[in-house]
Formats: sequence, C-alpha cells, structure tokens
Amino acid sequence: PELGELNSTFKLQSVELPEVKDGQLLIQPIFFSNDPAQRGWIYPNQDERRTYMKPVQAGECMKALALAKVLESKDASIAEGNFVVASCGWIEKAVVDTKDIFSLPMIPGLSPSVSLGAFGGTGLTAFFGRGFTDIAQFKEGQSIIVSAAAGATGNMVVQLAKYAFKAKKVIAIAGSAKKCEWLRTIGADVALNYKESSFKKDLQEAAPDFVDCYFDLVGGDILDACIPLVKPYGRIVACGAITGYNDTSKHVIKNWTEVITNSLTIQGFVVLHFMHRIQEALDFISLALKEGKLKIEETVVRASIEELPMIWMRLFSGENLGKLISQVADL
Amino acid sequence: PELGELNSTFKLQSVELPEVKDGQLLIQPIFFSNDPAQRGWIYPNQDERRTYMKPVQAGECMKALALAKVLESKDASIAEGNFVVASCGWIEKAVVDTKDIFSLPMIPGLSPSVSLGAFGGTGLTAFFGRGFTDIAQFKEGQSIIVSAAAGATGNMVVQLAKYAFKAKKVIAIAGSAKKCEWLRTIGADVALNYKESSFKKDLQEAAPDFVDCYFDLVGGDILDACIPLVKPYGRIVACGAITGYNDTSKHVIKNWTEVITNSLTIQGFVVLHFMHRIQEALDFISLALKEGKLKIEETVVRASIEELPMIWMRLFSGENLGKLISQVADL
Repeated sequence: PELGELNSTFKLQSVELPEVKDGQLLIQPIFFSNDPAQRGWIYPNQDERRTYMKPVQAGECMKALALAKVLESKDASIAEGNFVVASCGWIEKAVVDTKDIFSLPMIPGLSPSVSLGAFGGTGLTAFFGRGFTDIAQFKEGQSIIVSAAAGATGNMVVQLAKYAFKAKKVIAIAGSAKKCEWLRTIGADVALNYKESSFKKDLQEAAPDFVDCYFDLVGGDILDACIPLVKPYGRIVACGAITGYNDTSKHVIKNWTEVITNSLTIQGFVVLHFMHRIQEALDFISLALKEGKLKIEETVVRASIEELPMIWMRLFSGENLGKLISQVADL
Repeated sequence: PELGELNSTFKLQSVELPEVKDGQLLIQPIFFSNDPAQRGWIYPNQDERRTYMKPVQAGECMKALALAKVLESKDASIAEGNFVVASCGWIEKAVVDTKDIFSLPMIPGLSPSVSLGAFGGTGLTAFFGRGFTDIAQFKEGQSIIVSAAAGATGNMVVQLAKYAFKAKKVIAIAGSAKKCEWLRTIGADVALNYKESSFKKDLQEAAPDFVDCYFDLVGGDILDACIPLVKPYGRIVACGAITGYNDTSKHVIKNWTEVITNSLTIQGFVVLHFMHRIQEALDFISLALKEGKLKIEETVVRASIEELPMIWMRLFSGENLGKLISQVADL
C-alpha cells in the first residue's frame, strides 16, 4: 500500500479546493481515525446494494473519519476555531457541508481525539445498541470472550463488560504479552496471546463452563476456536473479521457444526445503523468515564499526509494499543 | 464404513435379548430412519456437554430411529401388533421401556414409515418452531433459498414455504438434474444443480433482489455462496452441514464479512429442543397434507441388517429423493 510505489493502492494527488459556499465549512483535519472497516471500503467491484456506504472508487479520495478544526465557516451555527468530526477522507484541507459533519462537545480534560475513539465509532460499537444490549443481550454476572481485545473497540468491550455490565468473567485475546499485561490492568480476568503455541489449550482452560457471549472482531481461526466455548443458546456478536480482510481463504470455520448442535446465534452489525441512538451511548460512556469504570487508551502517531496509509496498516500487524490515531497537525 | 472390513466403522454383533419386564416392550424394527445427524453421533472423544444427546461409544449399538412393531407388551397401554417409534438403534429386535418410545397414530392411506419422515424428525425440522416460525420468521410473500432441497428436510421446506407459507419465490439447490426437475414439480420456482459449472452465476441471477431467508442444510461452499444473497437484516437457519461432516476443512466461508456488513443473523437449531411443541407441528403438517399443499416423498430401500450402514451412506453421496428409509422386515 505504500505511496508512490509501482502498483501502490494509494497515490498522493493535489487538487484545487472549491470555494466555500453558504452552509459549508473549510476544515483542517488534525486527527484521523484508523479503522479496520476502511479495508472493506476499497474492495474493487462491490455490489453497492451489499455495502453500508458507497465504496471508494478508483481515483477518489480515500475515505476516513477526522477530527478537524474549522478554518472558515459560512454557517452561522458553527464558529471558526471549533472542532468537528467529518468523513472528509485523507486530505489536508477540505470543504464540507455542515449537514455532513458531527459537531460534538469537547470533553474537559480529554484530548479532542476521543471523538474518534472512545466517543467515536469504535467506542459506540463496543457499547452500542446491538453490541451489548441488542445482540449480545449481555447481563450482569455473565461471561464473555473478546478478541482483538487491545484494539480500539476491543478494549472498550473489555472495560464496559467488566465494570459497567459487571461481567463474571472477561477473557481477552490479543497478539502480544505486552497487550495481555495491559488488558489485565483494565479488567480482563484472563488475557491470552493467540501467538503462543498453548493458546487454544489455554483458551479452553479459561472457559471450563463455557461463556455466554463471544464478541468477535477477527473472524477466521480465532472465531473457530471460540465457537465451541460459547454456551448452548449463547450469542456471537459478529463485529469484525480482520483476519480475512486481506485474505478471505483464512475464514475456515472447522467447528461450524457446533453452531447447529448448540443452537448458537451469530449476529452481524454495523454501528452506523444505530446512530439514531447515539445520545444513549454517549451518555453511558461519559458516565462510565466519570465513575472511573473506563480508561481511555489511544496510540497517537504524528504523521505527514504521505504516511497515512502506512500508519493505517499498523492495524493489520497489530502494533497499536487502544485507538490508533494519526495526527497530521497541531491542535 | 462397510461391515466386516478391516478398520470398518461398524461390526455386526449377536447379543442375547434381556427378559421383557413390566413397563417394557419387545419390538421389531420395520423401517429405519437415515439421517445426516447420525454422523455427528459417532465422532470419537466428544465433549458430552456440547452434544444434544449422548454420543455412541465404541462397542455400543449404532443409534437410529425406527418404526417398529410391538411383538410383546408388558404395558397395558400398548397392545401387541401396534406400531411405535423408538430410538432403538440398528438392531433386529429390542427390548425398550415404554417411556422411551413415541406411540403415534397411523395416518390412513399413508405408509407407517411417514412417522420417520414427513411426520418425524425431518418433517418436524422443516416445519418447526424455530425452523419457520421462530428462526426463519418466515412470512407470506417472502423469498427463500433451500439447500439439500431434494432431501428429507429440504423437500418439506420447499413445499411448506411455497404452499403453506405462500412464499413469493423458492429457490431450491440439489445435486442432479433429475432432483431439480422433481423440485420444480413440488413447488420450487427455481431449482439449481450445484454440480453445474454455471451454478454460482445461476444462483445470483435467481436472486436479483436477494432473499429473506436461507435454510442451510449443507454448510461449506454453498453456505458461502448464499450468504451474499441474503437481504440486509435477513436470516440464515443453520440446520445441517453435511458438506463438512466427513471433512471439516470444507467449512470455508470466504464471504464471512457479509454477515457483518449486512447485519445477518445466523441461528442454529436442533429439533429435539422443540418436542414440547410436537402437536402444533403434526397438526400443521396433517392439515397441509389434507389440503393438498404437501406431497410425501420417500425412497424406501429393502435391506438386511448388514446393509444398513451402506444404505445410510447414500445420504452423503446424495442418491435419495425425499426421505431415505431402510426397510428390514415386512409390515
């Protein structure tokens, strides 16, 4: 994906900014959100009726969510110098319609970048609607396995499950000893490194009575290992499948028959479908933060616009703790 | 699996029958039900907490459901000469407790073997509880894909969907041109042979606006092909996975991310969990039959006890139309 190489996925382009019209803003992105979901937005030849947003077409600007500063405003409701969340893509400056941006209140004492993580798509995904209340139907005293647990969504699931939903047992899966150590400090009763040779055995031993829910962010081999550990009539939240985003042949599910014989329910969801309930989630997360039930973890990487693809790619090699943010300008 | 060969799965054994005590019956199986699910009952070293019935142990009699004649009764409620359904296994005669048998009314004009098919596990599975009303939540005017559609459960799903639930479109998948031809006569709007090279393209063309439900009896490659054809928020009934029963590496689901991006729900079920609602299903199926909305299709094969394994194996090579029954004695 590196820029400028032969067959690169991305290319740096200079384009002239349009004039700022009424109801529009000129914005400068400060922080970019890095999300595994972005991988899904750039598969070629997708059937648009099967995608939850229009895929990026060849030649178009790569889509990305940014926390941006308003440099110029032609909308009386938003002042210059304000911060907004915009899906403006990887761009240094952009002209956007105010109807397309989120104007979120800044939270005192926290970096504005939390609007992209704990209070953004990944935090909402961890909390949201179907994530816990609808799909997982998670209840106090239940047990849960979370994969990609040190990532932006996963670490929020671990914390919310343990402290806000009073889980009996939270089993977290991540890709390094360091991540596992950290996960134990934020609420994981057990944290397991899937790269260890004893992983599958350790995972089975961690769930001798099975779990009520598996929050799946990775798919493939780890999903396969977790299916037999979900209780009969238990639930699997299909929230991400990072294992196979770059190689679909990794989606081998040898334990598929367990879905049938143990009457499991697997439910997929996209947080965008729950934006009408955003206030409920923001209130819950704010309260959890105030009550000390939640810590916010971000990995902020200072970068030039050219470096954005490479920083984003760290998601797939698992180098980040918590939310991975690219910072392209000073606040 | 052939009998008597080196490393055979099955072995013919002679055992002495116990005395018939109070509350017991001596029965002679006439018809045996052949079910893909039996494959799951003989995997070695299964964790019993993950199985819906005790797996067959090495040396034990192979489990199977039979329609049997009562030769001797020490229970006043059941007369000699009656027919009962018993899970007695592959055996010529058996002594069973009356509490373990089903005593079903015979349906005039129909072979008693229907108690194993249309009115037995496979028919109930097609209709049942979670199959249509709970899991599929199938409604009049909706569309459905059914795999293994010419099999015992599949053909009942096709007929019930089309005639009893007034489906807008029933797309049936089977393994031969002959089966497809038959499926068109029992209610399939489209019937496709998955062995044709054009299968995937034909399947996509058959569902240009996607379907509300996929009733999956096979798993693997066909499940994978159907996932992208289920509407956003649609449902997949995970009812069987015959593709991978003998080779779990066939459970490759390359389109797994569609489960997430299209918010699909996959739900597994075992009909045994719904036996408390058996009367509801039997009434429904009886009525559908009376109203001409349902035809019963059976493939009855006359066999000796030694031939039972080989007849059962025909399920995996797909040689049967409708319910595959082994008949070991005259009525």
